[in-house]
Amino acid sequence: MLAPVEPANVFEYEAAAAELLDPAAYGYFAGGAGDELTLRDNVEAFRRLQLRPRVLAGVGDPSTAVTVLGAELALPVLVAPVAYQRVAHPDGEVAMARAAATAGTAICLSTLATSTPEDVAATGATRWFQLYVFRDPGLNAELVARARDAGFTALVVTVDTPVLGRRERDVRSGFTVAQHIEIPALGRGGITPAQALELISPSLTWRDLEEFAATAGLPVIAKGVLTAEDALLAVEHGAAGLVVSNHGGRQLDGVSATIDALPEVADAVAGRIEVLLDGGIRRGADVVKALALGARAVLAGRAPLWGLAVDGEDGARRVLELLRAEVQMALQLTGVRTPDGLTPAHVQRRR
Amino acid sequence: MLAPVEPANVFEYEAAAAELLDPAAYGYFAGGAGDELTLRDNVEAFRRLQLRPRVLAGVGDPSTAVTVLGAELALPVLVAPVAYQRVAHPDGEVAMARAAATAGTAICLSTLATSTPEDVAATGATRWFQLYVFRDPGLNAELVARARDAGFTALVVTVDTPVLGRRERDVRSGFTVAQHIEIPALGRGGITPAQALELISPSLTWRDLEEFAATAGLPVIAKGVLTAEDALLAVEHGAAGLVVSNHGGRQLDGVSATIDALPEVADAVAGRIEVLLDGGIRRGADVVKALALGARAVLAGRAPLWGLAVDGEDGARRVLELLRAEVQMALQLTGVRTPDGLTPAHVQRRR
Amino acid sequence: MLAPVEPANVFEYEAAAAELLDPAAYGYFAGGAGDELTLRDNVEAFRRLQLRPRVLAGVGDPSTAVTVLGAELALPVLVAPVAYQRVAHPDGEVAMARAAATAGTAICLSTLATSTPEDVAATGATRWFQLYVFRDPGLNAELVARARDAGFTALVVTVDTPVLGRRERDVRSGFTVAQHIEIPALGRGGITPAQALELISPSLTWRDLEEFAATAGLPVIAKGVLTAEDALLAVEHGAAGLVVSNHGGRQLDGVSATIDALPEVADAVAGRIEVLLDGGIRRGADVVKALALGARAVLAGRAPLWGLAVDGEDGARRVLELLRAEVQMALQLTGVRTPDGLTPAHVQRRR
Amino acid sequence: MLAPVEPANVFEYEAAAAELLDPAAYGYFAGGAGDELTLRDNVEAFRRLQLRPRVLAGVGDPSTAVTVLGAELALPVLVAPVAYQRVAHPDGEVAMARAAATAGTAICLSTLATSTPEDVAATGATRWFQLYVFRDPGLNAELVARARDAGFTALVVTVDTPVLGRRERDVRSGFTVAQHIEIPALGRGGITPAQALELISPSLTWRDLEEFAATAGLPVIAKGVLTAEDALLAVEHGAAGLVVSNHGGRQLDGVSATIDALPEVADAVAGRIEVLLDGGIRRGADVVKALALGARAVLAGRAPLWGLAVDGEDGARRVLELLRAEVQMALQLTGVRTPDGLTPAHVQRRR
Repeated sequence: MLAPVEPANVFEYEAAAAELLDPAAYGYFAGGAGDELTLRDNVEAFRRLQLRPRVLAGVGDPSTAVTVLGAELALPVLVAPVAYQRVAHPDGEVAMARAAATAGTAICLSTLATSTPEDVAATGATRWFQLYVFRDPGLNAELVARARDAGFTALVVTVDTPVLGRRERDVRSGFTVAQHIEIPALGRGGITPAQALELISPSLTWRDLEEFAATAGLPVIAKGVLTAEDALLAVEHGAAGLVVSNHGGRQLDGVSATIDALPEVADAVAGRIEVLLDGGIRRGADVVKALALGARAVLAGRAPLWGLAVDGEDGARRVLELLRAEVQMALQLTGVRTPDGLTPAHVQRRR
Repeated sequence: MLAPVEPANVFEYEAAAAELLDPAAYGYFAGGAGDELTLRDNVEAFRRLQLRPRVLAGVGDPSTAVTVLGAELALPVLVAPVAYQRVAHPDGEVAMARAAATAGTAICLSTLATSTPEDVAATGATRWFQLYVFRDPGLNAELVARARDAGFTALVVTVDTPVLGRRERDVRSGFTVAQHIEIPALGRGGITPAQALELISPSLTWRDLEEFAATAGLPVIAKGVLTAEDALLAVEHGAAGLVVSNHGGRQLDGVSATIDALPEVADAVAGRIEVLLDGGIRRGADVVKALALGARAVLAGRAPLWGLAVDGEDGARRVLELLRAEVQMALQLTGVRTPDGLTPAHVQRRR
Repeated sequence: MLAPVEPANVFEYEAAAAELLDPAAYGYFAGGAGDELTLRDNVEAFRRLQLRPRVLAGVGDPSTAVTVLGAELALPVLVAPVAYQRVAHPDGEVAMARAAATAGTAICLSTLATSTPEDVAATGATRWFQLYVFRDPGLNAELVARARDAGFTALVVTVDTPVLGRRERDVRSGFTVAQHIEIPALGRGGITPAQALELISPSLTWRDLEEFAATAGLPVIAKGVLTAEDALLAVEHGAAGLVVSNHGGRQLDGVSATIDALPEVADAVAGRIEVLLDGGIRRGADVVKALALGARAVLAGRAPLWGLAVDGEDGARRVLELLRAEVQMALQLTGVRTPDGLTPAHVQRRR
Repeated sequence: MLAPVEPANVFEYEAAAAELLDPAAYGYFAGGAGDELTLRDNVEAFRRLQLRPRVLAGVGDPSTAVTVLGAELALPVLVAPVAYQRVAHPDGEVAMARAAATAGTAICLSTLATSTPEDVAATGATRWFQLYVFRDPGLNAELVARARDAGFTALVVTVDTPVLGRRERDVRSGFTVAQHIEIPALGRGGITPAQALELISPSLTWRDLEEFAATAGLPVIAKGVLTAEDALLAVEHGAAGLVVSNHGGRQLDGVSATIDALPEVADAVAGRIEVLLDGGIRRGADVVKALALGARAVLAGRAPLWGLAVDGEDGARRVLELLRAEVQMALQLTGVRTPDGLTPAHVQRRR
């Protein structure tokens, strides 16, 4: 079912969502830390890179499929972990998971989801579980076990949040997850983002990550790496993959855009583990640039969330399909039939 | 016959055309793919380059004439292939051809022209034929034969359009070529740009281009090259020339401006075939920069089209004459009498 | 006591102060010399630098404390010398000193303070004395003796003001310190900034600074160094420290932002004396960048002044506490527990 | 006698002049060629350069005096040749010459002046004569003889105007010098700038300049050099000096800002002849940057012209005095007492 004027791209989905959502809720999802320099730079950095298109390359019969952690996905875009999705739409993460499943991709469920892992599992979507490591080790063990039991196939440990970044839009709006929206991991709603994150441990180290990798019974992905040094540590400490991420510009303001950090990370990793990226994905061409520079796939959070806000499962699915179509066109116009054909030579810095 | 206030430059011709044209039609001609990054960068990239003017060089008796594929043109600006010109003005490509002839230059007729090759031939203009290679080989052969028979002297094969770029202005406006405007190559009007291009083959390769070069009975020019790699392939596969082009920013958004890609292409070609350029030409100084960096001439599409929209044949001619006058002044003020005098030392990057 | 809507950051404190202050007074504190290029660049230059955050570094139990000239401060931000603080709030420098003491940091009192050194000493704050060297040597000796006797622990000699920069906001507004506000060093109020500075010597040399260092009985800090050459001279002539400063953009317009000058200065000094920095500090992350590049601490002038203007001692204290909290968060999110952990590898230039 | 609100800087003088002048006249003086890229870049390029200020340098007893072609000037800013000054103010070039004399500097009279060389000579100002070389050799000889006889001490030959740049503001406004304003060199008024320049020779070469240098009986300065190559030719062909100039952005749009071209020119000249610069001078700091990079002095055209437009001789004088004061302050705050003290190490490119 189409809206009267179907948004033509992700930016228009955001504009439509901004109209529909409560301003405080929109601010929570859209905003970033501090002066939002990194929030904006995540998007602008993609524009500083150019594709180098090859022509007459015979690009009939294209495919956008990729394999991530051994699973084939129909497009190189996963749904990133986004907390509190029922704030955006009553169907929340369950609708998002259904959209991902229909589009042929995976969803990474947030620790701070407003749907249970079991309900998400029931959608049949390929699913990963994002873990904020709490001060309480028992809670961590319980969350991991519950995800594993519910058929989640990867554990995405967030490594960039020893303390919660200060998102001033939320400070000003007083944004609070409504009381009636439950957060299964916390056992309650009626909480601000900062209150929820007070439970998180600031003392986490690579040794802890190694422990998770050894004991979780799931491949562990370190989410939040921005440097070659930490990429090497991820390899050394047993991660199966990492996500080049600055938490969508929501943690430390003034760090590198993720696409700018990707080359040094991919270079350090040298193919030993899988490299993913999130942050700033608005266009299929962004995805293609990330893949050319060494990412196996990307995660998009806000993009499908705006779709969810606009039209629930259908909206989220349409955003994912839009991105898939854009990726396919960008691949063909870059002169490759499939993501495998991309190399760093397909990207250059704008002069 | 002058308009009440004659536009002083190409930008003002565009402004006047935007007033006169139906908004959807204006959007079709003016717009580009995606976020229109490349559309804008085509123009801005010329501004990042500076001319290095030499003085006291004795520049009386100047000439703007150049020889392209053996034909002398009075100015180094050809009319680029632009589809559907009768949408801009009822006299369409025939008026444009007459304007080109009067101005002493050539027209490259689009496959998707709204005038027949024969009618354009009747104007006596020097004429090239732009070919979109269709899935149907018979149609291609027929188009080439018809152009050759009508005295077209070059076949410009578009190589950057295995699929049509997504031009969101058209998505939003629903722009459709009116039913009463016929498109001879398709045998009908009443079609959107995307529908027309569905007939094009996504599987074209350099081998196909080589086949055209061997069989067309016309010199073949590959239009849409942006890299040194593809420039070398054009040389190897029998092209007589190439056009450094990003399709006016209408195909893959986020690629290099053409003037930024020209040096690597000219360097790779090393004079073995003729190098042309289109995209972003708004000023005579832009033409001079392109020539200094290795182009033999440029093609301008939108510039004469705005003239056509404003005042038919007269308007198109005035734009071409304006560009010729600007080229001559820019040559003289750069310290050369003729295009031959230009070298890469006449151009530098702005600091 | 909170304002109805507590400002969330330093920028909002400035906006609130701009509402409250007389426009001429606001212009005096906010403005800079000439076209205010350097005023703006001091802020923007921090944005051209990025933090390189390390993760999983175990950043529980953080501290923002630093040692400057042997004194431990709870945060690496001192209160910079700002003239005429009673123009911003009736409690002036005394309130500012109390705020500094409560926040655990030091205040550097301006020669052109509107409170006496003795009154500031009575607050118990750690205190430094900024000296404009007057044409009258007796006055200089008197000021130094008075500061030393009042327990000031460092003499900060301003070296960038042989003549007063032309601040055109003041030229236009005719800003004058009100008659009833006394300036102890001058013995009177009712004076424009330019009149006050006419008393300053344009002929000061490094030999004079050496003389102060030998005779003042206090460590001497040279405030206003922007080059490696002058940093070496500061070391050679007996300074105990220097402040990389362009006088908040108020002296020579068109010089380097201080954070851009810091690396060459820190490199030249090579740890032999203490390096401080002022100019453009608006965020905790700015402080962290300065420390990573070699500053032991920074001085902030306008930031606490806006707090003073908004709410006297309480306002100034809240700004200092806000900056301390931001510094702590930026340290933790950069992956260090304390300022000692910072190195130049934590900073990179934005691409 | 001060205006009600005396402009505080050159930008404010321009704003005041724009209020007073006829719009077409203002457009003539303010405008540039084409898209006015170079017009704007002349100003912006100064902002891309920074001064590296040295401190504690003992800058009492400062002086702004320089020696140019053997004549001492009180400030390193001459009045550039500007045509048609009676269009700006009825007292025209005579008032401008008086202002220059009072301020202690020289005026360079335009060939297209609206006052006679003899009337300008009567002011006693140090005076140079700018020559547009006409197609008619007799006219050139007559102009040179008349200038020499009237005590002009240098012949400034404009070398960047083989044809007149297209200034679209004038094309739109139809700006014409009023009939009643005589142009002595042409023997009449009532003419457009383009008509006046049709008399100029496009065929001038370095050999012609050498001829002038040999026969004029005056030192010859080549005005309009932007490259090292032409700077060397100026040296070889007997010029006593050159002006790095792009004709105030009024000839070839899209060339280098003059301050960006200065280093390569000064380097090529290596002190053998005197190097001057015009274009974009709005601040004393601009002058200091030019001197540090190798200019002996600069010429300012629009700046004193705005003063002339605002208040005749007094206005022009005030602008020159304002610039002198700004130069002096910039010298002192850069750490030098006199222009001689400046070196390229006092300037750096902004990061």
